[in-house]
Amino acid sequence: QRQQKETYSNRGMTLEEDLNETNQYYLDRGIAVIHKKPTPVQIVNVDFPKRSAAVIREAYFKQSSTTDYNGVYKGKYIDFEAKETQSSTSFPLQNFHEHQVRHMKMVLDQGGLSFVILSAFQSFYLMEAAILLEFWERKENGGRKSITKKEIELTSHPIPLGYQPRIDYIKVLEKLYFLSS
Amino acid sequence: QRQQKETYSNRGMTLEEDLNETNQYYLDRGIAVIHKKPTPVQIVNVDFPKRSAAVIREAYFKQSSTTDYNGVYKGKYIDFEAKETQSSTSFPLQNFHEHQVRHMKMVLDQGGLSFVILSAFQSFYLMEAAILLEFWERKENGGRKSITKKEIELTSHPIPLGYQPRIDYIKVLEKLYFLSS
Ligand SMILES: [Mg+2]
Ligand SMILES: [Mg+2]
Repeated sequence: QRQQKETYSNRGMTLEEDLNETNQYYLDRGIAVIHKKPTPVQIVNVDFPKRSAAVIREAYFKQSSTTDYNGVYKGKYIDFEAKETQSSTSFPLQNFHEHQVRHMKMVLDQGGLSFVILSAFQSFYLMEAAILLEFWERKENGGRKSITKKEIELTSHPIPLGYQPRIDYIKVLEKLYFLSS
Repeated sequence: QRQQKETYSNRGMTLEEDLNETNQYYLDRGIAVIHKKPTPVQIVNVDFPKRSAAVIREAYFKQSSTTDYNGVYKGKYIDFEAKETQSSTSFPLQNFHEHQVRHMKMVLDQGGLSFVILSAFQSFYLMEAAILLEFWERKENGGRKSITKKEIELTSHPIPLGYQPRIDYIKVLEKLYFLSS
């Protein structure tokens, strides 16, 4: 049980923190401009105290209709979702919402680069959206509700954990979509 | 005074509402996938009542480090900011924040399409980021702190207000960047 959380518990970093640092690294060096979108919030009540900043006093979390990260690399639209699982055998598809999957499909149809960064089995993987959509469809057609570890290893691209940048997913994109050789 | 607000006061729509409807129109028809980013909020305190949704009880508005809208059109990264003025003679550059302008420059450097949609003088204009950057630099170098109506008319592209879509900025982008003829 303890061992399954190793990737993060040992380092004290979350997947989101790692990706934010990675994106900052890209930004600082002019490699790519990719940001995490703010958490969508439905604001109901705001106080406007004199001589100080407005305070939101009642608000609710809304479900996002898109993925968490997007931006630009070499002119191309980049769009991805980050997900983690503690399971040691498979990646549950319930981690994804219907509208996120629909969004990924629309991005692909529009010629953008869409993918998922998975943190699972003490590793990181880049899974292209086209692959995820196949597993999603299998589920929709009554098949299994998760992607097995073996399937992920066969279909996805490992991203080695580094120091700077931590999760160098641009390197994987470069190989997949930009290298002519 | 009344007349200056005509564009919106007469229709009861805000620029943001018009753009959201426009983006929904594009989305529904598979023309483009472009969304407004959520308002960034710094969450300080959250209540978790039993048997009901979490309630944010203290939060503050944060300044965004990017622009308001982004997405993908024909594979290309699209990124823009929407701004309006009630002035009838010029567009004040104080409407833009330093970090937004910096973000636009980074997007351009990365090969993305970056621009501003201006609502001013009872009209809508698409101003390419490269042009805005010139006016911004003029200000930084001690020049005027606004863009005159004449300058906007000379450098920007009018977007006719329509019924569906309301602000058809993709048509302008198509002419500027995608038409080979
Ligand atoms: Mg997420
Ligand atoms: Mg704005």
